Amino acid sequence: MNYKMMGRFCGRILLVEGVFMVPAMLISLFGREFASARAFLWSIGIILLLAWLLMWFGRGSKKKFYAKEGLACVGISWVVMSLLGCLPFCISGAIPNFVDAFFEIVSGFTTTGASILPAVEGLPRGILYWRSFSHWLGGMGVLVFLLAITSAGGGDNGFTMHLLRAESPGPNVGKLVPKMRKTAGILYLLYIVLTVLNTVFLLCGDMSLFESVCTAFGTAGTGGFGVRNDSIAGYSPYIQNVCTVFMLLFGVNFSCFYMLLIRQFKAVLKDEELRLYLGIVAGSVVLIVLNLKDFYGTLGETIRHAAFQVASIVTTTGFATTDFDLWPGFSKAILLCLMVVGASAGSTGGGFKCGRLLLVLKSLRRSVRKVVNPQKVEVVRMNGNPISEKVLQNTNAYLAAYVIITGVSFLLISIDGFSITTNISAVLACFNNIGPGFEMVGPACNFSSYSIFSKLVLIMDMLAGRLEIFPILILFSRTTWRHR
Amino acid sequence: MNYKMMGRFCGRILLVEGVFMVPAMLISLFGREFASARAFLWSIGIILLLAWLLMWFGRGSKKKFYAKEGLACVGISWVVMSLLGCLPFCISGAIPNFVDAFFEIVSGFTTTGASILPAVEGLPRGILYWRSFSHWLGGMGVLVFLLAITSAGGGDNGFTMHLLRAESPGPNVGKLVPKMRKTAGILYLLYIVLTVLNTVFLLCGDMSLFESVCTAFGTAGTGGFGVRNDSIAGYSPYIQNVCTVFMLLFGVNFSCFYMLLIRQFKAVLKDEELRLYLGIVAGSVVLIVLNLKDFYGTLGETIRHAAFQVASIVTTTGFATTDFDLWPGFSKAILLCLMVVGASAGSTGGGFKCGRLLLVLKSLRRSVRKVVNPQKVEVVRMNGNPISEKVLQNTNAYLAAYVIITGVSFLLISIDGFSITTNISAVLACFNNIGPGFEMVGPACNFSSYSIFSKLVLIMDMLAGRLEIFPILILFSRTTWRHR
Repeated sequence: MNYKMMGRFCGRILLVEGVFMVPAMLISLFGREFASARAFLWSIGIILLLAWLLMWFGRGSKKKFYAKEGLACVGISWVVMSLLGCLPFCISGAIPNFVDAFFEIVSGFTTTGASILPAVEGLPRGILYWRSFSHWLGGMGVLVFLLAITSAGGGDNGFTMHLLRAESPGPNVGKLVPKMRKTAGILYLLYIVLTVLNTVFLLCGDMSLFESVCTAFGTAGTGGFGVRNDSIAGYSPYIQNVCTVFMLLFGVNFSCFYMLLIRQFKAVLKDEELRLYLGIVAGSVVLIVLNLKDFYGTLGETIRHAAFQVASIVTTTGFATTDFDLWPGFSKAILLCLMVVGASAGSTGGGFKCGRLLLVLKSLRRSVRKVVNPQKVEVVRMNGNPISEKVLQNTNAYLAAYVIITGVSFLLISIDGFSITTNISAVLACFNNIGPGFEMVGPACNFSSYSIFSKLVLIMDMLAGRLEIFPILILFSRTTWRHR
Repeated sequence: MNYKMMGRFCGRILLVEGVFMVPAMLISLFGREFASARAFLWSIGIILLLAWLLMWFGRGSKKKFYAKEGLACVGISWVVMSLLGCLPFCISGAIPNFVDAFFEIVSGFTTTGASILPAVEGLPRGILYWRSFSHWLGGMGVLVFLLAITSAGGGDNGFTMHLLRAESPGPNVGKLVPKMRKTAGILYLLYIVLTVLNTVFLLCGDMSLFESVCTAFGTAGTGGFGVRNDSIAGYSPYIQNVCTVFMLLFGVNFSCFYMLLIRQFKAVLKDEELRLYLGIVAGSVVLIVLNLKDFYGTLGETIRHAAFQVASIVTTTGFATTDFDLWPGFSKAILLCLMVVGASAGSTGGGFKCGRLLLVLKSLRRSVRKVVNPQKVEVVRMNGNPISEKVLQNTNAYLAAYVIITGVSFLLISIDGFSITTNISAVLACFNNIGPGFEMVGPACNFSSYSIFSKLVLIMDMLAGRLEIFPILILFSRTTWRHR
C-alpha cells in the first residue's frame, strides 16, 4: 500500500471540503446564526489542520501505484470526508448525536437523502445549506472535482483513470475526450450549467433564492434533502413540474448532453440506455395513473403526482409531493421495482442503473440462446458496439454483490424488529441512494427509530451504493492490506 | 423440433401418471367415496387414452435430437402432466374451478405445497392421497423415474443425459455411476428406502397408516401438503421432531447418501455444500431461539418450533407447527432469507440451492481479488475440484434469471393490490417451491384470494422454480421454435 499517496489524496479532499464549508459559514454569519457560524469555523479549522497534516505526511510519495490503491483511496477518502463533514451538525447542536450526524452527512454526500431528522424547518440556514450542498458535491463526485481543477497525482496518468472509474457510476466510464482531466472539466461544467438553469427556473416560480439554490442542489445531485418538512408537497404545481423535469434530466447519462453539444443528435436518439430509461419512466407513469384513478381530484393532479414520484424514485432523488406510502399496492410495487432499477450510468443518480440492467438482460438472452444452440458464438452488443466478456463478467459479479449485500443488510437491520416491508425498503432506499422507503421509513417518516447498529449498517450501504460496491468491498478484503 | 420424439415422451409420462393414479382410485373405492372413485376412473381413462394417442403419433421418431429438445420436452411434459393431473380434483368437485385445481396440482408436482384450499380435513381420502403423492412423484422427478424403469429414448444416450440434467436440481448433475440409467435407479432406491423409513418412524408415534404415508410423501418430496388443517401443529412433539429430522435429510444432496453407502465417509464429511447447509440450519436455529425468548413456555418448546420451522423453510417443504407469521421481525427476516437460499443441489428441495450460493460467493470473492490483483489468474474450486468457467457463467446467468423473474412476478401479482410483504413472500414461496409465506399467504392462510391472472403467474413461478428456470424460459424463446 502506498500510504503516503493515499494520505496526500485524503489531505487534498479535506482541503476542498474545508474551502467549500466557507459559504455555509458566511450564510450563518449573515443570518446572525452565530452558534452555527462558530461551529462551521471550528469545523473548517479542524478540517484544514488535518488536511495540512495529511499532505505533509504524504509529501514525496512514490509515483508507483496499483489499481487497488486507487479504489481503496476512493473508499477511504469518502469515509474520512464524511467523518469530518458532520462536525458542523455536532458542534452546532443541530444533531447532537455523532452517529446520527454521520448518518445525515453520509446520506448527503452519497446523495441518498435519508434523514434522521423529524423536522428541518427549525434548523439554521447555514446548516440547511451545508446539508443540501453535500448532495451537490457528492453527486458528481469530489474526486472528479479534484481532477477537474488540479493535475491530481501528477498529471494524466493511470491513477487518475482508476480514481475516476471508481467514483463515476456505471458499468464502464466513457471518456468524453482523450484527456481525463478535460473529461472531468466538461462533466463539471455541464453539471454547473444545469444546476444554474434549474435554480433560475425555480426562481421564476417565486421561490426564494435560498430555497431555490438548496432545492437545485438536491435535484442536481439526485439527493433529496429539502428545506421544508413536507419536501416539495407545499410548493406550487409549477415548481413541482420543474423539479420533475430536472430530476429526469440529472438521471440521464451526462455523455448524452455532451453528444448534444457536439451535435451528434443521432447517437443520442439511438442510445439504448436512454431509450430504456425513458421507456421505463413513461411506462411507470402510465401504469400508476391508471392504478390511481379517483385517488386525486383531477386527472391533471394524478399525472403530476405520478410523474413526480416516478422521476424522484427512478433517479434515486427521493423528493416527494405526496405520501406515496398510501398509494394502492400495484403503484407501490412499481415504485419498489424502480428503486432497484435506478437511473442511467454516468448520471448523478444511483441504483443498479438502466445500462447495467440492459447488459444483464442481453447477457441472459444470450445464455438462453446458448442453451438452445450450444455451438453458436454470440457477442453482446450495446449501441452496436461489442461488449467485452470482462465487462459482462464484472456486471454479473456486480449483480451478485448487489443481491448479497441487500440480503445481509436486510438481515442485520431486522434485529431491530421492524416489519419486513420497512426493512426491505430501508435497505433498498439507502443502498440505491434514494432516501424514503415504505411504512416506517416512508416519505412522511424518517430513519431515527433504527438502532445505532442498524444506522451503521445503512451508512455502509449508502457508501457502497454510491461508490458502486467495489471500493468499499475491497476495504474488507485481506488481500488489499497485504504487503507485496 | 423433433415433435414425434416429444410426443412419445409426453405419452410415456402420461402412462406413468395414469398408472400411479390407480392406488388413489382404490383408496377411494375402499373408503366408499364413490364420487371421487368415479372421478379417478374417468381421469385415468382420459390420461391413458391421451398417452396412447401421443405414443401412436410419436412412433418411428428420428433418433436425432438437440439439447433444446431435451429441455423443451421436460418443460412441456410437466405442463401436460399437471393439466391432466388436476382432473380428479375438478371431476370429483373437490376443487370445482379448473385454474384452482391446476394451481393445486402444480403446487403438488413442483413440491411447493402452496394451497388454495382453506381446509383439507373434509376432502375424500383418495383426493388427499393423490395430492400428497404428487409431491412424492415430483420430488425426485417423473422423468428420472421413467429413466430408472425403462431405457428411455433407446438406451443410455445424450438425450437421457439432457433429460436428467433438466429435471434434477443443482448447478451440475453428479453421475453417481457411469450409466445414467443406473444412477436414476440408485436415486429412486434411496428415495424409496428413506420414505419407507420415514413412514415407519411416524407409525411408531401412533400416527395412522394413511396419515403416515401422506406425511412421508410430503416430507420426502419436500412438498408440504398435509392432511390436517393445522399442518403438523396438532401432532405430538415426537412426530414433529421426526418430521424435522427427515425434512433435513431430504434436503441433503442424495449423492452424499450414496457416498455413505459405498463407505466414503471422509468425502461426505468434507463436502463443502453439506457443511454450508448444516451450518446455515444450525446458525438459524440458534439465532431464532435467542430471538424467540419468552415466546413459548419452555426452552425445549422454543427449540422444537425453531428447528421445525427452519428445517421446513430451508428444505422448502412448507409444513408448520406454529404460525411463524406472528414471530418477531428478526426471526421472520431469517426465514425470508432461508426461503431464497433453499436446500442442497441434488436433493428434492428447491430454492436457489446452497451449492449455487457457494459458487456465487466464491466467484464474487475471486472478482474482488481480481480487482486488487488484476494479473492474478485464480481457479474457483469446490471440494478441491476446479469449477469450469462455463459452470460459473451458467450460475451467474441463473442468478440473473432468478432476480428478474422474482421482480417481474412480484410486479404482476401486485396488480391485485395486496401488501408488499404478502406479494414478495408469495412469489418467493412459489418460486422456491416452499408453500406458505407471510401475512395473507402465511401458514394460517392460503392463496385463494389471488386473482386468476396472479395464480397463473404463480403457477409459472412454481414450474420455473422446480425445473430450475431454463426448461421453462426456453419455451418463451423464439429460437427454440425456429426450424432448422
